[in-house]
Amino acid sequence: MAAAVKVYGWAMSPFVARPLLCLEEAGVDYELVPMSREAGDHRQPDFLARNPFGQVPVLEDGDLTLFESRAIARHVLRKYKPELLVGDGSPESASTVDMWLEVEAHQHHPVLVAITMQCLVAPLLGNAPDQAVLDENLGKLGKVLEVYEARLSASKYLAGESVSIADLSHFPMMRYFMETEYAALVEESPHVKAWWEELKARPAARRVTEFMPPDFGLGKKAEK
Amino acid sequence: MAAAVKVYGWAMSPFVARPLLCLEEAGVDYELVPMSREAGDHRQPDFLARNPFGQVPVLEDGDLTLFESRAIARHVLRKYKPELLVGDGSPESASTVDMWLEVEAHQHHPVLVAITMQCLVAPLLGNAPDQAVLDENLGKLGKVLEVYEARLSASKYLAGESVSIADLSHFPMMRYFMETEYAALVEESPHVKAWWEELKARPAARRVTEFMPPDFGLGKKAEK
Repeated sequence: MAAAVKVYGWAMSPFVARPLLCLEEAGVDYELVPMSREAGDHRQPDFLARNPFGQVPVLEDGDLTLFESRAIARHVLRKYKPELLVGDGSPESASTVDMWLEVEAHQHHPVLVAITMQCLVAPLLGNAPDQAVLDENLGKLGKVLEVYEARLSASKYLAGESVSIADLSHFPMMRYFMETEYAALVEESPHVKAWWEELKARPAARRVTEFMPPDFGLGKKAEK
Repeated sequence: MAAAVKVYGWAMSPFVARPLLCLEEAGVDYELVPMSREAGDHRQPDFLARNPFGQVPVLEDGDLTLFESRAIARHVLRKYKPELLVGDGSPESASTVDMWLEVEAHQHHPVLVAITMQCLVAPLLGNAPDQAVLDENLGKLGKVLEVYEARLSASKYLAGESVSIADLSHFPMMRYFMETEYAALVEESPHVKAWWEELKARPAARRVTEFMPPDFGLGKKAEK
């Protein structure tokens, strides 16, 4: 029988890996429907009918079609493993999870994307890294890591003593960022380092990592 | 007796207005603790202890301290008016609300910020609008409005027939964007226009608008 849950997209995308990680954590049987970015599958009418913004991933769960990776991640956990979405179930716990998921989206993710694009993707495309972009984002990353180090000194995970969607949502971009030379900044933050090592060792994360070659599928791994 | 809920920030900020709108919708008694951006109150140690990222707003609700405006908005509605957060209570309804809140954050908000900064803020600061930034974002806005027009032709609100946090979250940036010359693009999209007019006429939105002068408090209203 076909899996009830389908994910459309290319799994090396950190946006696609986010819901895949949640599906793996929840032990949901799912089908990854392969799509080609190079062939422009995301601009075809059948895909635009699923997501008019033309972006991966899309999730189908029975009659429900969803886009936006963090909304999909929430859906998967709400339905299949709610303790990872709402913490201990109190409004305070759920709100703390939400807060750190928003921090991931608005403070952490943009900085890691910018640095990773310059360090890993630009060389693969034959371009030199833009030092001004790097410098600006390394400055922001220093501040972000300072906040995370303080937070993870006070609790094992971002939203408390249990892992949550907030932690999981960091995994996909961290997986690529940790291939850059600036991974050393994480290595120098002992609590962030311990958190990352615990996160990447989770069986679900190890399974998703198999879909995520360090070169984003753009060619052989860049020299570092 | 002092209000149990405190919001720290300057209310003309669209980020601060987002939770204020939710508090007004939920009928919660709250105190807006005044802060001065010009005086750098957000960089003072007492504020950094509440939000180490140094950004407004911060919410205090009893013993809970939260930052990130959409997480605060979620908290307020989860605790005080949950039907605006989870729709009819089914996982599908809650996930559809989440999806459109993510669309607001990642598709709609950045485009409106870019256009509004060029059209309203740059002139107030004595700068000419950057036409390349305007052109890029007007192109994106056209696509976003096309998706919204189709969606709001099929349902009264973004997540269905009832208003939700997803709709409310659009209000603060729309309030400023509609002061720009590009408001005409919304006026030309009949279902988006009807949705916006319904949204801004809500008593809670009218109360929050009183805090939001069209010039962001930067001076007198820019010539248009």
